[in-house]
Amino acid sequence: MFAGAQLSLYPMTDGFVGTILEALEALDPWRDRLRVETDDISTLIVGPPEVLFPALRDLYVRAAATRHHVVLRATISRGCPGEPDDPACVTGALADPDTPLATRIAEAKAIVAEAPQTGEEAAAQFSLYVMGNGDHMAEIYGCIDFLKESGTFDRSKNFCTRVKGDAGPVFATISEAFCRFGPPEGHVTLDLTVSANSPSTKR
Amino acid sequence: MFAGAQLSLYPMTDGFVGTILEALEALDPWRDRLRVETDDISTLIVGPPEVLFPALRDLYVRAAATRHHVVLRATISRGCPGEPDDPACVTGALADPDTPLATRIAEAKAIVAEAPQTGEEAAAQFSLYVMGNGDHMAEIYGCIDFLKESGTFDRSKNFCTRVKGDAGPVFATISEAFCRFGPPEGHVTLDLTVSANSPSTKR
Repeated sequence: MFAGAQLSLYPMTDGFVGTILEALEALDPWRDRLRVETDDISTLIVGPPEVLFPALRDLYVRAAATRHHVVLRATISRGCPGEPDDPACVTGALADPDTPLATRIAEAKAIVAEAPQTGEEAAAQFSLYVMGNGDHMAEIYGCIDFLKESGTFDRSKNFCTRVKGDAGPVFATISEAFCRFGPPEGHVTLDLTVSANSPSTKR
Repeated sequence: MFAGAQLSLYPMTDGFVGTILEALEALDPWRDRLRVETDDISTLIVGPPEVLFPALRDLYVRAAATRHHVVLRATISRGCPGEPDDPACVTGALADPDTPLATRIAEAKAIVAEAPQTGEEAAAQFSLYVMGNGDHMAEIYGCIDFLKESGTFDRSKNFCTRVKGDAGPVFATISEAFCRFGPPEGHVTLDLTVSANSPSTKR
């Protein structure tokens, strides 16, 4: 399997370059388990989901701690048929598709409930895409049932779902959505936006 | 069918609120053909593809003209099975799936070649997702063939494709990718990032 993310940080401040470079230091503890490549639009990180999501969380928390309005955007993918298998992406995080949806939902909720707190709030929205044959909407609706019971559910919007709360459970929720729904051998992607310190929420 | 986008503008400046509000005026000429709803994370626009993409282009061009480093992000969707049909989204822009891929590629190239210039450069990357049964990768590979011949192709990256050039042909390229590949009754989404005035490209 091949898994990874194209991520970008958008600090809404004149000092955005320094804010981005400082926040990227939060990836350092993960670098031995990630391949990282940067260009002018995004940074590619390649690795298994159990590394990708904590790394994204730590990056977000570091950027949010600047108190600037900062947005983390990521396109996260696993199992893209156009990408070669990569031993660095071997994962034990994906659910067994023979496990009934109700069981997978219960397991996902337990993980979110145990997620460590970070002290930073996160307002997130994301879309989960399950490609290929099979009943992809059944997996999406199963995932939505999980989200509504996750403790981080905010609301459904057109094309995406909002979650909120401490960044720890929020990123755990998103990781569970990505790993536990859609077949493990399938092509699954997640389009993620996480917003910190928005002035629109302080009115 | 239901079609629309969740879009966000990220101006990397202390004056981001004013920049966003000013740029949103570029949507005014399109508002009678779009439904628009804003919250603290994104703005929803609902309408047919032939309105969505020119509206996104005009929003981008207005924001880029501030000369700030600005990023436009959009999650664009058509045919999501979870959304009701909406008469406001009726479109003549989607290709006939019985038209061979080679013909569709030629038609798409012709549209891009005729796209009006805007005077603003755009560096964009996007991922196209075709859900449901059928050979979704054949449509993706057909789309990639089009992109490579589009005149705006920059390079392939993991999980996405980069296009560049004047915003006119760039947004026309993205619109053609969205409309001409994947079945017209299918669920197709596009995860788009367009970057203006990045200091990383001025080295």
